[in-house]
Amino acid sequence: MATTSTKRRGYREGLNGELLAEFLGTFVLILLGCGSVAVAVAGLPGSGRQTVAFGPANWLIVSWGWGLGVVFGVYVSGGISGGHINPAVTLAFAARRRFPWNKVLPYWGAQLLGAFLAAGVVFSAYSWAINDFNGKAGIARDQSLATFSIFATFPAEYFGNSWWGPFLDQVIGTAILLLLVSALIDTRNSGPLSNLAPFLIGLVVVAIGLSIGTNAGYAINPARDFGPRLWTYFLGWGDIALPGSFQWFSGYFWIPIVGPLLGGLIGIYVYDLFIGKVLTERAKEVPPETLRAEEPGPSREDPGADL
Amino acid sequence: MATTSTKRRGYREGLNGELLAEFLGTFVLILLGCGSVAVAVAGLPGSGRQTVAFGPANWLIVSWGWGLGVVFGVYVSGGISGGHINPAVTLAFAARRRFPWNKVLPYWGAQLLGAFLAAGVVFSAYSWAINDFNGKAGIARDQSLATFSIFATFPAEYFGNSWWGPFLDQVIGTAILLLLVSALIDTRNSGPLSNLAPFLIGLVVVAIGLSIGTNAGYAINPARDFGPRLWTYFLGWGDIALPGSFQWFSGYFWIPIVGPLLGGLIGIYVYDLFIGKVLTERAKEVPPETLRAEEPGPSREDPGADL
Amino acid sequence: MATTSTKRRGYREGLNGELLAEFLGTFVLILLGCGSVAVAVAGLPGSGRQTVAFGPANWLIVSWGWGLGVVFGVYVSGGISGGHINPAVTLAFAARRRFPWNKVLPYWGAQLLGAFLAAGVVFSAYSWAINDFNGKAGIARDQSLATFSIFATFPAEYFGNSWWGPFLDQVIGTAILLLLVSALIDTRNSGPLSNLAPFLIGLVVVAIGLSIGTNAGYAINPARDFGPRLWTYFLGWGDIALPGSFQWFSGYFWIPIVGPLLGGLIGIYVYDLFIGKVLTERAKEVPPETLRAEEPGPSREDPGADL
Amino acid sequence: MATTSTKRRGYREGLNGELLAEFLGTFVLILLGCGSVAVAVAGLPGSGRQTVAFGPANWLIVSWGWGLGVVFGVYVSGGISGGHINPAVTLAFAARRRFPWNKVLPYWGAQLLGAFLAAGVVFSAYSWAINDFNGKAGIARDQSLATFSIFATFPAEYFGNSWWGPFLDQVIGTAILLLLVSALIDTRNSGPLSNLAPFLIGLVVVAIGLSIGTNAGYAINPARDFGPRLWTYFLGWGDIALPGSFQWFSGYFWIPIVGPLLGGLIGIYVYDLFIGKVLTERAKEVPPETLRAEEPGPSREDPGADL
Repeated sequence: MATTSTKRRGYREGLNGELLAEFLGTFVLILLGCGSVAVAVAGLPGSGRQTVAFGPANWLIVSWGWGLGVVFGVYVSGGISGGHINPAVTLAFAARRRFPWNKVLPYWGAQLLGAFLAAGVVFSAYSWAINDFNGKAGIARDQSLATFSIFATFPAEYFGNSWWGPFLDQVIGTAILLLLVSALIDTRNSGPLSNLAPFLIGLVVVAIGLSIGTNAGYAINPARDFGPRLWTYFLGWGDIALPGSFQWFSGYFWIPIVGPLLGGLIGIYVYDLFIGKVLTERAKEVPPETLRAEEPGPSREDPGADL
Repeated sequence: MATTSTKRRGYREGLNGELLAEFLGTFVLILLGCGSVAVAVAGLPGSGRQTVAFGPANWLIVSWGWGLGVVFGVYVSGGISGGHINPAVTLAFAARRRFPWNKVLPYWGAQLLGAFLAAGVVFSAYSWAINDFNGKAGIARDQSLATFSIFATFPAEYFGNSWWGPFLDQVIGTAILLLLVSALIDTRNSGPLSNLAPFLIGLVVVAIGLSIGTNAGYAINPARDFGPRLWTYFLGWGDIALPGSFQWFSGYFWIPIVGPLLGGLIGIYVYDLFIGKVLTERAKEVPPETLRAEEPGPSREDPGADL
Repeated sequence: MATTSTKRRGYREGLNGELLAEFLGTFVLILLGCGSVAVAVAGLPGSGRQTVAFGPANWLIVSWGWGLGVVFGVYVSGGISGGHINPAVTLAFAARRRFPWNKVLPYWGAQLLGAFLAAGVVFSAYSWAINDFNGKAGIARDQSLATFSIFATFPAEYFGNSWWGPFLDQVIGTAILLLLVSALIDTRNSGPLSNLAPFLIGLVVVAIGLSIGTNAGYAINPARDFGPRLWTYFLGWGDIALPGSFQWFSGYFWIPIVGPLLGGLIGIYVYDLFIGKVLTERAKEVPPETLRAEEPGPSREDPGADL
Repeated sequence: MATTSTKRRGYREGLNGELLAEFLGTFVLILLGCGSVAVAVAGLPGSGRQTVAFGPANWLIVSWGWGLGVVFGVYVSGGISGGHINPAVTLAFAARRRFPWNKVLPYWGAQLLGAFLAAGVVFSAYSWAINDFNGKAGIARDQSLATFSIFATFPAEYFGNSWWGPFLDQVIGTAILLLLVSALIDTRNSGPLSNLAPFLIGLVVVAIGLSIGTNAGYAINPARDFGPRLWTYFLGWGDIALPGSFQWFSGYFWIPIVGPLLGGLIGIYVYDLFIGKVLTERAKEVPPETLRAEEPGPSREDPGADL
């Protein structure tokens, strides 16, 4: 999609335009996603629980909220930047879809900034609800895992001191994300037409929420977790937000960063190994009766890229 | 879409036809939307709660009910009027999408009338349920916030005397609505084809309900709130419906009018600033090897308009 | 779609083929729809309630179950019979969409037969659950409104002796159904392409369930109610199923027959009055600069017919 | 889709490529499907129930989880193998859609292997949750029907010693599956375009879950049940997993194998009898005024095959 024009271009053109799109797409994702957790935890009248105990209907709110956040984050940005809105997607596309490596860090920055600012807007809209919730629970903000869960993720209590469990969970969740995104945008496979890939990609995230979501909050996106986490650190959740002496998940923050980046690479590689290469070989096949002149193979092994 | 024919036209042609469409589209929206709150509050056997305390599954009913109301309100009217069914959409399109300013007030009137009459139909269908609900609760209609909530919105109790909180909530909610509607109907972006934009626009409203809905009932549409509110005023909800001496939300009625109108302008402007102008600049780019004669730019800066 | 071939045709051709399709489509609708009520009432482990008290999550199961039943009932039959699967749709299309009047009674018969047999299959699959439910409740089948609700509809208790309330409810619900179906299949409006109308039509029924469903079980389809009701009469629900001395809804059975037939006519007429005629007039308009020879108007006023 | 090329082909080509696709598609189905049951049973904080008692909101999680699992299992594999991911589909297509009989056993093997390995991944991700659940319940793994239900199916207690009830349930459920899949992929009927059949096929499974799911866990797919069941046998669920002396469902394992295979055949045959043959006859009709030379009939009676 990169243009070859060499004339002077304004700040919105080229990479800058793509960064604006990634920023806004991730902003939309976090606003809708974190907003849905705020509704499920502190917004619904009569919620007022003191512990983090999502009932199944709350979980449906959260799963659909995040999934629709992805749908619309991709629709907002897809026409300009490809709609990554997730550093793990950007890394996987750089590794396996010829996304330019020199754009990876700028994309990551735009995604993180969008997530960070959106979390600020969520806080500004829900600060009354959060304070009311904590007030009724009679606990200070920096002890309130429930209201922290509006913004960032943490592992289920049953993992105890194991970092391996939540890490594996993040790897699996993001692997399935990239595996399915790869399938949905591969024009040689049976992905949806009529520009409905963003809708189906959002449903992937609904599915991941319903299926791989409760172990550790399915960050599956380093920007989604770390951007809002920074905000909570500044706003008084303290040790819960970033490493300190707090309970069983001290030092957890790196897991929803490294896990998704690794998982995304695995997922896209599995797709290419099981599906992509078969489609590539099929495309090469020449029926004997229609021998054509040697034609150059497609320069891209796996064209199903860049949404 | 305006035709240039000058011959005499019947009352349904031109603007009048558009007003009929806006009226009917908003009617459908309110009938399905308010109806879903009626089901969640008073319709379900065994609901019978005395306070406004939506559980999470009730909230799913309400969120999907309003979202599907938007889907079908837009499908009914889209082919004629553009399917605004919301004064905030009409204003934003006038300000940024060359929708004719002289149609704004007529559109607003048609939308308000449709909302008003639909609320009357909802009342006619649910008056038995409402009276039964209030009867079992042993309270008079003008004290029943729960049954009022079927029709119009009010802020969560935790806002206390703050008007700023709910106002901000309405601005954010409507800004995200117009931001995403702008993306979905911008043909230069990656919006859905096959006439599926109304479906996705309805899902935007599902997402807003799940994410930004509980603070103040996500009116995000002046007609949606004020039309049914008028009806409740005439039907006996009294001070709850319109300004008086009632508790913490006296004089609240203007917030779901002004907030959405302002928020919609912000949302569409943010879209144009971050996304629309990039797409416009890209469309202007001329690859050096294919220098073409100076071509007149598109007369409309932002063609993604009028659905 | 009627063919003009005059050669001898097998029993599956022409009207007979359409009747097979209507039969099977309505069969699918009832199997999935009534099945979802069976799950919500008696199938879920731990349901075991003795009264008909759907919680909101049960209501979501029922609303989506019936909606998806419509989706797939229409997809199965749409290519052959137009996918009416509802006598109210057939009547409305005969009155306003030139569906042949002489096919109306055969269609009704096929729809009723499909509904009747599907209810039998639902009973065969859920008889263990029904008996277990009634056994634990300690009541005889002919006293069990809860298990009756799996098959047919009845008004909410708060209607008392009023037949007018549920009748109005059925008229409104079916009017909105036909109004929206008319919009979705009118090729001059903005209905979905890519053969997605059946999907959206099913979502209309989800919306009606969520919004107009609890007053009287939203039959909105005479075959949907009367077919399964017959079965319950034969299988021992006695007076609950058909008129007798049972409580507040004696003699109720005619309401979900007459109400939907009337409501459907109203709904399609409202669509034509507000939307259809505007689209027809627009289609007639001739821009002055392109005066064409007098062309014969389309022989059908409202082409948005027959799905 | 089979190619005629005779040159040497790598292991990924031809049948091997299709088996890789079936393996991965079924893997995705089971990972998302079983994962959603894990969330509903043991993952949600505060679930901790000791008995298998799904509430209605849990059931929504499970129904959407399995349905989305089908959506994405088919999207991953559809472009290569046709996206069967279910031995009952493969058998039905061999019997009625000219799918090559010599591919049936290899497809079955790939599906079973995918299901088996995916269940292992689900166990690896949820072993902490499962152990925590059983620990709090104070029961050994081989007594825990609740955690077993994450992986494989069993009949509702009310069936007692009847094998006929659950068998009928499996036949009905899979018959409706193949009936609707046949309709959705039959290009002569009104199935969805734009490559959206996999989405609608997944919604079929949502519908079956909501409507025919609670009697016996709606395996409707021999690989879906037997693959994960093997795993549970090896991992300590013992007699619950495979025949032994355990309670009322000893020796149950064959029912979700034989029932779906039979039901699928019935479903596709009913489709062909009621719908397919009508469409075939319609395609043969020659309007009298356009007599064409005798043209060879289509070699395939029912082209709606192989997705």
